[in-house]
Amino acid sequence: MTTHPYETRLRGAAEQAATAELAGLAVTPGADLVYLTGYAPPPLERLTLLVVRVDRDPVLLVPALERPAAASCPIGDRIEIVGWIDGEDPYERAAGLLGSGRFAITDSAWASHLIGLQRAAGGCSFVPASAALPLLRAIKDDGELELLRRVADAADRAFAEVLGIRFSGRTEREVAGELAVALERHGHQEVGFTIVGSGPNGASPHHEPGPRRIEPGDAVVLDFGGRIDGYCSDITRTVVVGEPDPQLEEVYQVVRAAQQAAFEAIAPDVPAERVDAAARAVIAAAGYGERFVHRTGHGIGLEVHEPPYIVSGNATPLRPGMTFSVEPGVYLPGRFGVRIEDIVAVTDDGAVRLNQATRELQMVP
Amino acid sequence: MTTHPYETRLRGAAEQAATAELAGLAVTPGADLVYLTGYAPPPLERLTLLVVRVDRDPVLLVPALERPAAASCPIGDRIEIVGWIDGEDPYERAAGLLGSGRFAITDSAWASHLIGLQRAAGGCSFVPASAALPLLRAIKDDGELELLRRVADAADRAFAEVLGIRFSGRTEREVAGELAVALERHGHQEVGFTIVGSGPNGASPHHEPGPRRIEPGDAVVLDFGGRIDGYCSDITRTVVVGEPDPQLEEVYQVVRAAQQAAFEAIAPDVPAERVDAAARAVIAAAGYGERFVHRTGHGIGLEVHEPPYIVSGNATPLRPGMTFSVEPGVYLPGRFGVRIEDIVAVTDDGAVRLNQATRELQMVP
Repeated sequence: MTTHPYETRLRGAAEQAATAELAGLAVTPGADLVYLTGYAPPPLERLTLLVVRVDRDPVLLVPALERPAAASCPIGDRIEIVGWIDGEDPYERAAGLLGSGRFAITDSAWASHLIGLQRAAGGCSFVPASAALPLLRAIKDDGELELLRRVADAADRAFAEVLGIRFSGRTEREVAGELAVALERHGHQEVGFTIVGSGPNGASPHHEPGPRRIEPGDAVVLDFGGRIDGYCSDITRTVVVGEPDPQLEEVYQVVRAAQQAAFEAIAPDVPAERVDAAARAVIAAAGYGERFVHRTGHGIGLEVHEPPYIVSGNATPLRPGMTFSVEPGVYLPGRFGVRIEDIVAVTDDGAVRLNQATRELQMVP
Repeated sequence: MTTHPYETRLRGAAEQAATAELAGLAVTPGADLVYLTGYAPPPLERLTLLVVRVDRDPVLLVPALERPAAASCPIGDRIEIVGWIDGEDPYERAAGLLGSGRFAITDSAWASHLIGLQRAAGGCSFVPASAALPLLRAIKDDGELELLRRVADAADRAFAEVLGIRFSGRTEREVAGELAVALERHGHQEVGFTIVGSGPNGASPHHEPGPRRIEPGDAVVLDFGGRIDGYCSDITRTVVVGEPDPQLEEVYQVVRAAQQAAFEAIAPDVPAERVDAAARAVIAAAGYGERFVHRTGHGIGLEVHEPPYIVSGNATPLRPGMTFSVEPGVYLPGRFGVRIEDIVAVTDDGAVRLNQATRELQMVP
């Protein structure tokens, strides 16, 4: 048999674990499992665990009732699959597979599973995979980059479409609904989120679109995305209903300059936090430092938020093929918020934006 | 101010924790947080943590950028909200709120968060909430029962509708699509899952609907559900395309009798595992004991799978107001599967089925 792409990824994961002086990886359902095996069960209370040890072939432990589903995954016939039956203690079974040593465990693994493993596998300790192996999925291969470009392009086209709709007098929920429809029309197979924060609501970065009616003069933060073939889009643009007032215009240009400065700071070997610092410096110099209340960005791929995080304290050096968001913002409580976000990919000598939607302040009706 | 229903639930949770000799609860986003506060952010890599101590007022720790969203939740103005800023160590902040002692943590809390808490809060230990406080959400109040009845009824009507469609010659995916549309047409606000396992695929209990074309004579397992106002439906029926062969007819009647026996075993104070044993005894007596590869049921409410689990080893006594599935099955690898599932509610002297869809074997075209 020729080597399957997933076998290559599994071997790469074991090598990364060895380099990080780990005994291996403990992978539960989610993006890591999809990346390593193509198997995509939902995370549930029954333990599903891929054990990748540096010194042994990988083993997939699954609830017996999901064994047929696991066996039909892309590498189901090339990996050992062990089933456990309801009523059995799955953590004892897992302990036998883990052996002993320090393991990177999926960040989003359920606490109940981790507690079970800590109890049953006394010789093992666990660290979050994002801390121990931050680069496991961070560097995208050509196929992944192509999908991220496609889904970013679909999000750009959705944005271009909603620029033509009426905002004034309609509720945030209505506009969010139009955004969702536009995402699907332009190729998204799944709509992930459609944040519409108008006027004072825009000052809440993760505002849920609500019943507020959008008014003339409002800044409206639109932050939306979804998936194509598992890979995520995530774009933010801030638009204004009619003419912007002078402060909105000023804040907008500050955020735009910060976003540009962060983009220009990106290059191989640059620590992730330096990109954050570049955006923050521009906003602080303009007197809005206190109003930039979140990090500058997050990695993106099979997950909408994944390493590398573009945040103070993260010294991870950037590498070609990494993809992440660059999304500084300024939030004035009770008034409005402005955020501009593109997904970018690190290249051999800098970065490219995967989103091409205009970053000029757009006026909407 | 009068007492808010969520305040009553928070106080009840603290009382349950005290009874269980816990210092309190550590609640992350998900059903427990929705149940206790009405606040429903997505579970993400940034720590959101509700600390309910038995000896102190509850405190909600949130990322600073989500503070406005948290403050606008149903009890946002009656609970202390603490924000932490990107770059800060949220686990140190959480440690200060937790103090020391044994805490029940949300089962689905991220492992990365639990590891962070274990590191920063050295005086604390953590046990899964479902093990320490299995009854936190298990006993439904009248409003919850009404919603579960409504959503079960909507699922029943969706089933009745798909009985009229053609199965033969169509793919599982097509039938799954019709099921999803029917769920929405009958009031579901969210489609959770639509399992369609035809012929040999039905022998995989959690089969994903695929490209297989359904054939005359196939048994088809339909297991589907979704949500209305947060509360879940989950029903399974097995139908046959045309006339059943004698073995299918036999297995069907065994599973139906097992489901009935389990239903009749339900009453207040009966241990959950006895309901499982009742179903298992019928199936074993018919010679299919080895082919019933999963537990008999799971609690249902804000989550589609939640305590109490109807499984060997769970001695939890049933109580009026508990709601769970009763879903025995028999799976013959390479041939077919049969499963029949209803949601039931424990009453003062037995149980009622929330699903009323017929359990007679239905023939479809």
